[in-house]
Amino acid sequence: MRRVLQRSAIILGILVTASALFIMGFVELNEQGKYALSKEEMAKASDIYFNTCAGCHGTTRKGATGPSLLPDRIATIPDSQLFQTIMYGKPGGMPDWGRQGVLSKDEINLMIKFLHNEPPAPPEMSMEQMYDTWKVYVEPQDRPKKPEHNRNWKNFMGVILRDVGKVAIIDGDTKELVSIVNTGFAVHILRSSATGRYFYSIGRDGKVTMIDLWMKKPDKVAEIKVAYDARSVESSKYKGPEGDFLDKYVVVGGYWPPHLVILDGQTLEPLKIISTSSYTYDDNEFMRETRVASIVASHFEPSWIVNLKEAGIVWIVNYKNLDKGRVDITALDAEKFLHDGGWDLTKRYFLVAANAMNRIVAVDAKEKVVSAIIPTGNRPHPGRGATLKHPQYGNLWLTGHLGDNTIACITTPTDGNGTKPWQVVKKIHLPGKGGGNLFIKTHPKSPHIWADRPLNPDPKLQRSVFVIDKNSLEVIKTIEIPKEFPGRAVHLEYNKAGDEVWVSVWGTKHQSTAILIYDDKTLTLKKTITGDWVRTPTGHFNVYNTVHDIY
Amino acid sequence: MRRVLQRSAIILGILVTASALFIMGFVELNEQGKYALSKEEMAKASDIYFNTCAGCHGTTRKGATGPSLLPDRIATIPDSQLFQTIMYGKPGGMPDWGRQGVLSKDEINLMIKFLHNEPPAPPEMSMEQMYDTWKVYVEPQDRPKKPEHNRNWKNFMGVILRDVGKVAIIDGDTKELVSIVNTGFAVHILRSSATGRYFYSIGRDGKVTMIDLWMKKPDKVAEIKVAYDARSVESSKYKGPEGDFLDKYVVVGGYWPPHLVILDGQTLEPLKIISTSSYTYDDNEFMRETRVASIVASHFEPSWIVNLKEAGIVWIVNYKNLDKGRVDITALDAEKFLHDGGWDLTKRYFLVAANAMNRIVAVDAKEKVVSAIIPTGNRPHPGRGATLKHPQYGNLWLTGHLGDNTIACITTPTDGNGTKPWQVVKKIHLPGKGGGNLFIKTHPKSPHIWADRPLNPDPKLQRSVFVIDKNSLEVIKTIEIPKEFPGRAVHLEYNKAGDEVWVSVWGTKHQSTAILIYDDKTLTLKKTITGDWVRTPTGHFNVYNTVHDIY
Repeated sequence: MRRVLQRSAIILGILVTASALFIMGFVELNEQGKYALSKEEMAKASDIYFNTCAGCHGTTRKGATGPSLLPDRIATIPDSQLFQTIMYGKPGGMPDWGRQGVLSKDEINLMIKFLHNEPPAPPEMSMEQMYDTWKVYVEPQDRPKKPEHNRNWKNFMGVILRDVGKVAIIDGDTKELVSIVNTGFAVHILRSSATGRYFYSIGRDGKVTMIDLWMKKPDKVAEIKVAYDARSVESSKYKGPEGDFLDKYVVVGGYWPPHLVILDGQTLEPLKIISTSSYTYDDNEFMRETRVASIVASHFEPSWIVNLKEAGIVWIVNYKNLDKGRVDITALDAEKFLHDGGWDLTKRYFLVAANAMNRIVAVDAKEKVVSAIIPTGNRPHPGRGATLKHPQYGNLWLTGHLGDNTIACITTPTDGNGTKPWQVVKKIHLPGKGGGNLFIKTHPKSPHIWADRPLNPDPKLQRSVFVIDKNSLEVIKTIEIPKEFPGRAVHLEYNKAGDEVWVSVWGTKHQSTAILIYDDKTLTLKKTITGDWVRTPTGHFNVYNTVHDIY
Repeated sequence: MRRVLQRSAIILGILVTASALFIMGFVELNEQGKYALSKEEMAKASDIYFNTCAGCHGTTRKGATGPSLLPDRIATIPDSQLFQTIMYGKPGGMPDWGRQGVLSKDEINLMIKFLHNEPPAPPEMSMEQMYDTWKVYVEPQDRPKKPEHNRNWKNFMGVILRDVGKVAIIDGDTKELVSIVNTGFAVHILRSSATGRYFYSIGRDGKVTMIDLWMKKPDKVAEIKVAYDARSVESSKYKGPEGDFLDKYVVVGGYWPPHLVILDGQTLEPLKIISTSSYTYDDNEFMRETRVASIVASHFEPSWIVNLKEAGIVWIVNYKNLDKGRVDITALDAEKFLHDGGWDLTKRYFLVAANAMNRIVAVDAKEKVVSAIIPTGNRPHPGRGATLKHPQYGNLWLTGHLGDNTIACITTPTDGNGTKPWQVVKKIHLPGKGGGNLFIKTHPKSPHIWADRPLNPDPKLQRSVFVIDKNSLEVIKTIEIPKEFPGRAVHLEYNKAGDEVWVSVWGTKHQSTAILIYDDKTLTLKKTITGDWVRTPTGHFNVYNTVHDIY
């Protein structure tokens, strides 16, 4: 009898416990269920996150230029507000992904769910994985020994057709389309090999493509994927007493994994991976996700200037002894959120934006010290900047801003001239309110500096370019692009001679636009390149100017 | 009626589902329950793991010198076998933690459970956390301006009393105990500041203690914890045209976090953290846990040689411009599993064991290249090695082995001498079977080299030291330590004059042992230092010899 009672009690206990567990489970399930993602949804959301959000919010969602998107912060924001933000953007810099048509409503709702979940651990990438993606389409020995065409290939323009995954090669002399090369998704920039013969493209998905301009119809000769997320590529440009490194190496900077990858400049074979995970320069916090922003090659020694964004550290990476298993890295404490930058007129000093800090860092690449940290304006975005010799101020380097309408003119060291370097001697005001400038450009043979403003909220300013006089440092003309081409005016590049300026009309991938060529003397539209293939043109790079860092 | 039926069906459904869930939950609970750990157990096991296992198996349990201890591998081994291994060790190098009395049976069973669980994510350590542990007991300005005693402090011996968390300072002239300093748990090594005035100790728990030998009774003047797990500490030793860095910096190498921490040499204030997470030199796999093995200071330039164990990379870290926010690192591809090493006779070449690869790597610290990689024997363990000028072979650097009974004599470059460097010109055979040698030592004024063998399985060999003639390169005497002192003979150090050799008797913390001083001429026991305080003496370091890298 006692036993039966015990057994009953046990069964009752089990049932009560089971019910309690079930109810708890159900409640939990319901709470989690709201944001639960299937494997396929998780994969799709991760993919969207990588391509659309990681750039500003970081691959691990800990925040970078944009705020943290980890679940604990997301939980404090109503889902309706998250939707509004993704749909319509925010004045601080968050794009209007919904309104632009980049994300559908369903995709925005998927992303809201995704953000409520813990971020998936981002994968590593080994060299073995890189090898698996490496393709040499034309071996070096099978490539032309001299150009197979009579075109002036040093004046070729490489135009990124971003959202259709292509790069167009255009003859800068004749304006003819020479070739369209399939490069894969979302090419970020092109860089020339030191001789100019090759273009290297880097996709936001970490894919590098190498295009041979000597082929009758320029085409890709090699490709490799070296990251899941990347922004920068550069070639080795030094030839001198320490060796001949022209077209010898290519270096890629990863956003994720955070690393430098050095490739063979002739074949893209991966040679070396260097982790960039670092402690921040100031408060010495470990940043697994220390992303590589801009990389620029030195002309006077075998080295690259590499900017470690979150850590605020500039590396000078000497590649001279790479074939002996040796790399020399000088690490310079600089400023946080390093982004883009370029050489001064003498190519000894490198100036880079610490964008979220509203400062420009000047690095003396010869003495290997930080020469100055200069407050300029609201979120400087120089691209590579613009350089000129001014009759009063001497050498200048200029940057525009995302967050205000000024272009800051900074003095750089000038031989035989007493101008004190690293001063903002002038702020040029672009007409109209707000910033949104992405690029400025000049050429030593031109009397002008050109500026775009594609991220300005005003559609009229988005579609305008601004011409500045090099002497007066004032805007002398605002040019609105022709009405028939839908999209924003973005990126400026001179031809080799420095007498014309190319501007992209950045639309959507569903509609063709144009590449506009302005006469730099008359400041009038000289030629319009159109065609069904002209889809989302963004950056366009002149071979000669890119080789020689002319800007 | 229909409604009632529906409701019944729903209730039935709920009950069935609940029972099913409960049963599933119960089964799972049972499976996991077997190895489930309470929070307290997890903390205790993590602690034991850090102190006992992480050294060889890695903090993240991915394996290093020892195999992986991740759950998927552990699941393939019966628990009974795991118990045997932890209890009795393995011939490959796994110590007999149970038999030695380091771990109780309950603790071994706890560790088996722990190994079946996923490893807890090891924590980061920020500079802020380091600051929280930083204590300056005596400010620099309050320290003696000259020695407060008349002792010959350059002949002091610092003796690690490992398992009681103390360092004894002994007068090498009088053999008197001068002071006992509480340093905290498991000091691994001592290093002298460049002037010799300070001893820096590093604990396996990442705690650095700084002892001032000029005080009447030498005591700690500062301490800081800079890692959870660490093995190496070194001072800045360069004074010359590039600056005076004597006693200026201290550098610590972390096992976890994997980093270098540079401290102020006068106060131990943390100045800079540098991540050592790297890609392996050969197959370019990312190793978050790239641990810092030995660090040795250069005498001819302001740099440290830093060995990155898992990556197989040697760093030469130049600290000259540290105060300007600049660090220069030369990274040399070397060989995997770098461990301990030291300078050649000229102090230009650094030789380091790649222990699991059975090789010695020779680095030219001047030209900054790997000069040679030399196969020597089974798991070389040089400590810092032993150096001598041999009448026939010229300069030699010697290493013993954990895995065999040989001492390899390697030629190093000799001025004005044709001997080809980097050859194993002789293998000295220690008597008796097996390896187990940890340290060898010599002195320029001595005709002998001494070797210990504490890790040999033979208790007689464990308790013996071996004297080698520098000319014949043969063992001329085996000395068994006196029977009355229980423990193994470990570590050898000459006094400043080079005419006596100190040996520790390494017992357990429950019993006092002795420090034995042998006359290097007569090879007889000259003096025995005993006392209740002599507990687990291990390494003992002569100030003068440590300052000048005499070995």
